[in-house]
Amino acid sequence: MTFQKKLDSIIKKNNSLLCVGLDSRFEKLQKAFQKKDYPQFAFNKWIIEQTHDLVCAYKPNIAFYEERGVDGIKELEMTCHYLAKYYPEIPIILDAKRGDIGSTNEGYTQFAFEYLRTDAVTLHPYLGKEAMEPFLKRKDKGSIVLCRTSNPGSGEFQNISGLYKKVAKAVSQSWNTNKNCMLVVGATYPKELAEIRKIVGDMTLLIPGIGVQGGDVKKTVKAGLNSKNAGMMISSSRGIIFAKDPREEAKKLREHINKYRISK
Amino acid sequence: MTFQKKLDSIIKKNNSLLCVGLDSRFEKLQKAFQKKDYPQFAFNKWIIEQTHDLVCAYKPNIAFYEERGVDGIKELEMTCHYLAKYYPEIPIILDAKRGDIGSTNEGYTQFAFEYLRTDAVTLHPYLGKEAMEPFLKRKDKGSIVLCRTSNPGSGEFQNISGLYKKVAKAVSQSWNTNKNCMLVVGATYPKELAEIRKIVGDMTLLIPGIGVQGGDVKKTVKAGLNSKNAGMMISSSRGIIFAKDPREEAKKLREHINKYRISK
Repeated sequence: MTFQKKLDSIIKKNNSLLCVGLDSRFEKLQKAFQKKDYPQFAFNKWIIEQTHDLVCAYKPNIAFYEERGVDGIKELEMTCHYLAKYYPEIPIILDAKRGDIGSTNEGYTQFAFEYLRTDAVTLHPYLGKEAMEPFLKRKDKGSIVLCRTSNPGSGEFQNISGLYKKVAKAVSQSWNTNKNCMLVVGATYPKELAEIRKIVGDMTLLIPGIGVQGGDVKKTVKAGLNSKNAGMMISSSRGIIFAKDPREEAKKLREHINKYRISK
Repeated sequence: MTFQKKLDSIIKKNNSLLCVGLDSRFEKLQKAFQKKDYPQFAFNKWIIEQTHDLVCAYKPNIAFYEERGVDGIKELEMTCHYLAKYYPEIPIILDAKRGDIGSTNEGYTQFAFEYLRTDAVTLHPYLGKEAMEPFLKRKDKGSIVLCRTSNPGSGEFQNISGLYKKVAKAVSQSWNTNKNCMLVVGATYPKELAEIRKIVGDMTLLIPGIGVQGGDVKKTVKAGLNSKNAGMMISSSRGIIFAKDPREEAKKLREHINKYRISK
């Protein structure tokens, strides 16, 4: 099944546009988890048990696993394989922001799709379509390209001659031959989000920046919905996984998002 | 010691601007290495033994290790620690092309600099200076930012309003507060290399694209030298490590480069 079909189906089943970021940094885990043999994996399992009926995707950011070297990568692998086995209906997005020349990207696709068994990966646009073909040609896998990032200084290059709009145009019109491309747009830029929605039609957008980073749910949903009242994966990481009650927090955010989907 | 001092000193000692890329893809190794317990590490040791007096840096590209998952990352670690222990005078560049928002980049710096003990890392510019501070603030470590990449399609975004020149200007003038920034410029674009050299003064450039990718040594050296008859790390990977006689090939390329340095 393609990433997009998997996503469409879970959005309906769980009535959710919420993507939970498994940014399970070791230092931030409760002591009880830190003492376990596989602390990040144990924590992730605990989060997944509480949220699997509330989400449209899980998105581990690899930096928080790489930071522990081989041990962290092992636990990322355990997490992805656990999800693929017990929750095969939920897509896994590897947030790795990769991008190299063509022959080298083959190594990254092997790692993300065969080794970790994830369904999609986030990518840098800088090297252009030709270099990114090893990702793009994987029809069943999602290529989620950075367009307008959520950080305060994202305009430094992304605003040069409207570069983020040119990325949106190129990815939606030229890169997307296999209908497997998506874009990353920060919730911290609702005006730009609305512009990008106009450029890309119904394409799915991955939207980080809600919560800790300051993005507003109402503005984001109003600006980002596509013609099918969906087309977004709104990602929250720290705000949910390190909350006192992660299930309650995930439920609240899913409903907060749905409120503006329905009364569009 | 800072990356730059280490580099300046080994350039003199080995009379070399040659950076050897340890892109030691498992499938490409000789059968004798493939059968070993740690095939990539064993191969890398063999290459290092033959070339350590001929290079100014080693540059493993992490994609070729990630491709094997935990086993590959373990052997990348063994390679970097081996270099740090036995050849501490030779800088290690982690070719990882990373770039995320600030808090996330801390995970990557931890991995590259503390865990692997490398001296520099390659970075994507797309998120802007503000996001990349966790790298930039590491005064002793090199931040090597993609400017004009070597691939045939690199112009897709890099040519928009001269984006690559704007990256060169920003990195050399604004990002470089700690004098630890460098740029990646492909040998396949000698005209652009000459333009970039004018913009960045004496800044060191990492130059891939010689050999298999088609970059010309003479044009590259003539376009890229700085006022001190250096300022470049010219990288060759497959052309050296998979040659019949890697030492002979490294020697030839070092001398080929030096020929045009001297008769500038």
